[in-house]
Amino acid sequence: MADKHPGPVVDTSASRHARLRPVSAPDVRITDDFWAPRLRRNREVTIPAQHAQCESTGALRNFARAAGSADGDFSGRYYSDSDVYKWIEAASWSMATHPSEELADRLDSVIELVAGAQDPDGYLNTYFSVDRVHERWTDLVVRHEMYCVGHLVAAAVAHARATGRSTLLDVALRACAHIADRFTPGRVTGACGHPGLEMALVELYRTTGDERWLTLATWQLDSRGRGVLDGSEYLVDHQPVRQQDRVTGHAVRALYLYSGMADVVLETGDPELRAALERLWADLSGAKTAVTGGVGARWDGEAFGDAYELPDRSYNETCAAIAHIFLAWRLLLLTGEPQYRDVVETALHNGVLPGLSLSGTEFFYQNPLADAGRHRRAEWFSCACCPPNIARLLASLPGYLYTTDDDGIQVQLYIGNQAELRLADGIPVRLDLATELPWRGEVRLTVDPAEPREFTVTLPVPGWAGADVTVRVNGDPVALDTGRRRIALRRTWSAGDTVEVTLPTEVRTLVGHPRVTAVHRRAALAMGPLVYCLEQADHHGTAVADIRLTGVERWTVAHEPELLGGVCTLSAQAGAAPVDDGPLYRPYREPAAPTSGVSVTAVPYFAWANRTPGEMRVFVPLA
Amino acid sequence: MADKHPGPVVDTSASRHARLRPVSAPDVRITDDFWAPRLRRNREVTIPAQHAQCESTGALRNFARAAGSADGDFSGRYYSDSDVYKWIEAASWSMATHPSEELADRLDSVIELVAGAQDPDGYLNTYFSVDRVHERWTDLVVRHEMYCVGHLVAAAVAHARATGRSTLLDVALRACAHIADRFTPGRVTGACGHPGLEMALVELYRTTGDERWLTLATWQLDSRGRGVLDGSEYLVDHQPVRQQDRVTGHAVRALYLYSGMADVVLETGDPELRAALERLWADLSGAKTAVTGGVGARWDGEAFGDAYELPDRSYNETCAAIAHIFLAWRLLLLTGEPQYRDVVETALHNGVLPGLSLSGTEFFYQNPLADAGRHRRAEWFSCACCPPNIARLLASLPGYLYTTDDDGIQVQLYIGNQAELRLADGIPVRLDLATELPWRGEVRLTVDPAEPREFTVTLPVPGWAGADVTVRVNGDPVALDTGRRRIALRRTWSAGDTVEVTLPTEVRTLVGHPRVTAVHRRAALAMGPLVYCLEQADHHGTAVADIRLTGVERWTVAHEPELLGGVCTLSAQAGAAPVDDGPLYRPYREPAAPTSGVSVTAVPYFAWANRTPGEMRVFVPLA
Repeated sequence: MADKHPGPVVDTSASRHARLRPVSAPDVRITDDFWAPRLRRNREVTIPAQHAQCESTGALRNFARAAGSADGDFSGRYYSDSDVYKWIEAASWSMATHPSEELADRLDSVIELVAGAQDPDGYLNTYFSVDRVHERWTDLVVRHEMYCVGHLVAAAVAHARATGRSTLLDVALRACAHIADRFTPGRVTGACGHPGLEMALVELYRTTGDERWLTLATWQLDSRGRGVLDGSEYLVDHQPVRQQDRVTGHAVRALYLYSGMADVVLETGDPELRAALERLWADLSGAKTAVTGGVGARWDGEAFGDAYELPDRSYNETCAAIAHIFLAWRLLLLTGEPQYRDVVETALHNGVLPGLSLSGTEFFYQNPLADAGRHRRAEWFSCACCPPNIARLLASLPGYLYTTDDDGIQVQLYIGNQAELRLADGIPVRLDLATELPWRGEVRLTVDPAEPREFTVTLPVPGWAGADVTVRVNGDPVALDTGRRRIALRRTWSAGDTVEVTLPTEVRTLVGHPRVTAVHRRAALAMGPLVYCLEQADHHGTAVADIRLTGVERWTVAHEPELLGGVCTLSAQAGAAPVDDGPLYRPYREPAAPTSGVSVTAVPYFAWANRTPGEMRVFVPLA
Repeated sequence: MADKHPGPVVDTSASRHARLRPVSAPDVRITDDFWAPRLRRNREVTIPAQHAQCESTGALRNFARAAGSADGDFSGRYYSDSDVYKWIEAASWSMATHPSEELADRLDSVIELVAGAQDPDGYLNTYFSVDRVHERWTDLVVRHEMYCVGHLVAAAVAHARATGRSTLLDVALRACAHIADRFTPGRVTGACGHPGLEMALVELYRTTGDERWLTLATWQLDSRGRGVLDGSEYLVDHQPVRQQDRVTGHAVRALYLYSGMADVVLETGDPELRAALERLWADLSGAKTAVTGGVGARWDGEAFGDAYELPDRSYNETCAAIAHIFLAWRLLLLTGEPQYRDVVETALHNGVLPGLSLSGTEFFYQNPLADAGRHRRAEWFSCACCPPNIARLLASLPGYLYTTDDDGIQVQLYIGNQAELRLADGIPVRLDLATELPWRGEVRLTVDPAEPREFTVTLPVPGWAGADVTVRVNGDPVALDTGRRRIALRRTWSAGDTVEVTLPTEVRTLVGHPRVTAVHRRAALAMGPLVYCLEQADHHGTAVADIRLTGVERWTVAHEPELLGGVCTLSAQAGAAPVDDGPLYRPYREPAAPTSGVSVTAVPYFAWANRTPGEMRVFVPLA
C-alpha cells in the first residue's frame, strides 16, 4: 500500500470544485466473497485472454507494422488501437493492486510496441500508418483518431499511477501535444466523432498539472455543435454542449462526452457546463435509464430512445453502462449527492456485470431485458469495445469504494474490503468492511485510526434499502432520521471502533413510471443492489413468458452455492397465464385468471445466459 | 376494358394448382370516395414526383451512363436501377387503368434508356457498367444483381400486360437468359442475397409459357441454404427453404422469397414447398405480425423478431407490409382461404397506406406503433425501396379486388368499383360495388351478366365484421351460418340483381395474445378494416402518453370531411393517469386511479404524422 505514485481512478484530490476526493485504488483491497473472486478471475483469466485476443486479432501486430517491424495489412477496425490501450489500462490497475512480474513484463513489451509506432511528430494511430499516412485528420467525423488517443492517455495515466513509470505517459504527452498543435485552442476548432479524449485530457492535467490539457479538453467540448463535425445527434454534435438538455444520440459517445464535461466542471466550476449537466442528468435518470442501470435503449444508432422509451429488448450496451458509471462517479465527486453512488452501484451490478460470463471469457455487447434464448455472449467482437472496457473497470474497482473530504471518510460502495486511507491531516486510518452483500444486508465496518481522532465516517443508505436501516457504533444503536440517504457518524474514533449497519434486503417488486408503457402492469424483482430475472432453465412445464406475479405471498431467499457460481435465488408460488391458442389479436375480454401454484424462481440478472439457452425476462406481468 | 393483353397482377389463370384465378386490373375501375382519390393522387402526384426523383438522384442517368451517352460517376446505391424499374411498373399499371399519352411517352423514353444500357450478352445493371464491369457476379451476397433483374422483369411484365408491347419484355428476357446461362439449373447454383427474382421469373413463365423460367425460379429457391451465399438468417440462407419453419432474418427478403415459393407451388403443387409455406405462415400470422399487418419488428437487420416480439417501436418497413400482401395474395390464389384476404386488407389499410403522406409526396420507411413526434415522412431515401413500391402497389390495386373460379366470382376487397369480368364460360358480367367503407359497413353489389346465368357470387366476411352480418339479395334476407367467413350466393343471376351486405363496423378494442408482453394490458382501437391511433394534435391539456381506456361507455364515430383528407374519428370520455413526478422505478403499489372525463379522440393510423408533430400511440393502457 504505497503512495509513491498515488492511484485514484479519477484524481480530484486537487480539483477546486470537487466536493469529494478519491482514494487510491492500491490502498483498498477487496476481500469479500462476491467481488474478490471476480477480480481474481479478471486478473487471472480475463486480462490474459484479452491479451491473447489483441494478439490473434492483429491489434498488437498493427503497432509493430506501424513501427516497420511487421509486414502485412492493417487488421481490424480503425479504432482497434483502443483495444490495446484498454488492455493496458486494465493490466495497469491490476498491477496497482496485485503486482505481478509476469504481467509487468508483458505490459512493458506492449508499451514498447506502442511507443515504437509513434511518429517523431507525436502522431500515433496504427490505422493511419504505412499506406494511410495521407489520410490523417481528414475525417474527424468517422475515424476515431482523437478517441484512440483518449484511450492511450487513460492507459498512460493508469500505468503511471500504478507503476510510477512514465514510459507510456511520455508517449501520450507527445500524442496530445500533436493534437494541441493541430487543433489549437482559441484558433483551430477540432473534435472527434467519438468523444473520450476530453475526460482523458482532464486526467492528464490532473497528473501533470499542465493547464494546457484542461484548456484543450474545454476547447474540444466547445467545438461540438459548431459545424466541425456533421451536426448529427448521433455524434452529439446537434447543439453546443452548453445548450443541451436532452440525452440523445449514441449513448456511449454522449456519456463519455458528459463525463468530460463533468471533469472540466470539477476543475473550473464552469456554471454553464454544470447547469447543462444537471439538465442532462435529469433527463437521463428520470426517463432514459433501464432498471438495471443500462442505458441507450435503441438498437438503431446504439442510441438513447425518447423519454420513457425503455422496451424489453433495449440495447443497453455494456460500454454505455460503464460510461454511465463514469459520469455518475464524477457527479458524485462534484456534489457528494447519494443519488449518484446509487447509479454507480446499480449499473455496476446489473448493467456491467451481465456483460461478462461467469467464466470470465465471454462478453455481451447488448444487454436486453428479455430474450427468447438466442442472445448469447461471445469471446470477442469485430467492434471489441466492450470486453476490455469491462476488464479495466473491474481492475480499477477498488478505487470506487471510498471517498474522503476534509471531514472524514465516506463509504461509497458496500463491498467487503480492507483499506488504509488517510485523513485530511495525513493520519492513516485502517478500515475493514465485512459484508455478505449483495446477498445479505449486514455490514460491519472496523475503523482503526493510527491515533484517536475526531472525524466523520459516512455510510450511504442505498435507494434499495428503504426506511428500516439500523446502525450501531460499538454495539450502541444510533438514531437515524427517516428518509436519510446517508449516515454521518462524527465522533472521536479510536482503534477497533466498529460500526454495524443493517440494510434491509427484502425482495422488491419494482414497476416503472406510468409512462414506461413497455412495462405497463409488469414488474421486475430486485433484492439489495441486484435486479433479478426469470430464466427458462429454472422452470419446467411452465413457459417463462406465461408466468404472472399473482398470488405471491412471500419470496423465499435461498443461497445456492453451486448455482451460477453461488447466488441467492428468489422463489415463490405464483401464477401462469393459461395456454392460449387464440389469434394474435382479439377483442378485449378480461383475461382468464392465471393458474396458481406455479413454482417460480428468479436468479440475478447478472448471471443470465450462463446455462441452457431459453427464455429470459426481467419484467414479468403482475396479472 | 380490353382483354387483348390481359392484365392480372399475378396471373394464375393457367396455374394448375391455383384455387382462384385473378382478374385483369384494367377490367376494374375503383370508384369509391376513399381509394379512388388516392389512386388519382398516385397517378397525378406520386408517379410524376417519383419520376422526378429518379431524375434528380441520377438513377435514370445511370442508364444513359451505361449506354455511353452520359458521363460522370454512378449515382446512388448498387440497387438504384430497381427504383427505375418500380417506377416503370407503377406507371404501367397506371397506364393500364388510366391511359395517358403523356405518361406513355415518358414510359417509352425511360424504357429506351433502360434498353440502351443492356449489354449484347443480356447483362443489365448500371452499377456494374463502365468502371465495374469486372465486378459482375463477384458478390452475390451483397450486390443485388439478380434482385434488380427481378424488378426489371416485374416492370416488363406489367408493361406488357398494360400496353401489349414487348419493348421492355424483350430486355427482361435477355437479362434472364443471361442469368439462366450463368447459373444453369441443375448445374451451377446461384441465388441473390436479396430475393425477388424468383417470383418475377414465375410471372415471366406465366407470360411467355416458357418453362425455362419456372425451372430457373425453382433452382434459385433451392440454391438457398446450400452454401451459395453466406448462410445467414439475414439473407434467409440459414436453411434450405424446404426445411424452414420459422420466419426470421430480413423481413422483405424473407417475404419476397416466400412469395416466389408460393408462385412455384401455384404452378407445380410441390408438396414440400407448400408444407414449408404453411409452417412459415403459421409462425408469421401467429406470432410475428403487428396489429397493422406490418411485419419485421426489429430495427437491427430490418428483421423479424422472436415469437411475440412486437414492441411499440416496431420497424414495420413499408416494403415488408407490401411483401406481406404479395405473399398473402398468392396464398389466397392457392387456397381460396379467407384468412389471406384479411391480411391483404389489413396490411393495405394499415401497413402500407401510412407509408404515404396525404399529399402523396412523402413516405415512411418504418412504421412504428408509437412515437414521440420525431418520426416523420421524407420525400425520398438514399435506400429508396419503399416509395416506388407503394406507387406500384396502389397502381395495381384494381387487380386485387376480385378473383374468379369455375363456379363464379369472388369479391376479395370491399372497395367501391365498377368492373367487367368474365365467367369461366366467357360470359361477361358487369359488377358495380358501392360502399362507404372503410367508414361504414353497408355494401351494395349489382350483378349484371350479359345474359342470365347460374353462378356463385362469393363475398367475404372479414375477420373484423364479427357475427352480425346481414345479406339481402334483391331485398330478400339470406340466412347465414354464424362463424361463416364467406357468403357464397349461388343462383341464376340476371341483369340488375343486387346484393346488399351490412358488415358491422363497431369500434373494436383489440388486445394482443397474452405472450405479446410489450402491449400487456393495453389495447388498440379499430373500426372496420382500420386500426386507429391517438395523436397529440387532438389532445389539449392531456399528454397522449397518460391516456387510459378507463370508463369508456361508448365511442362516438364522427365523419370529419375536413380532417386529414376526410376521416371518421372515434371519440369518448376516458381516463388519464395522474401527473406523476415520482422516480423512474419504484416499488409496486396499486397505481392511483386514472382521472376521468378526459376527452379522447382517435384517428386512423394511416393518417398519422400529417399534422403538428407530437406523441402518437396505437396501443393505449386499459387502466
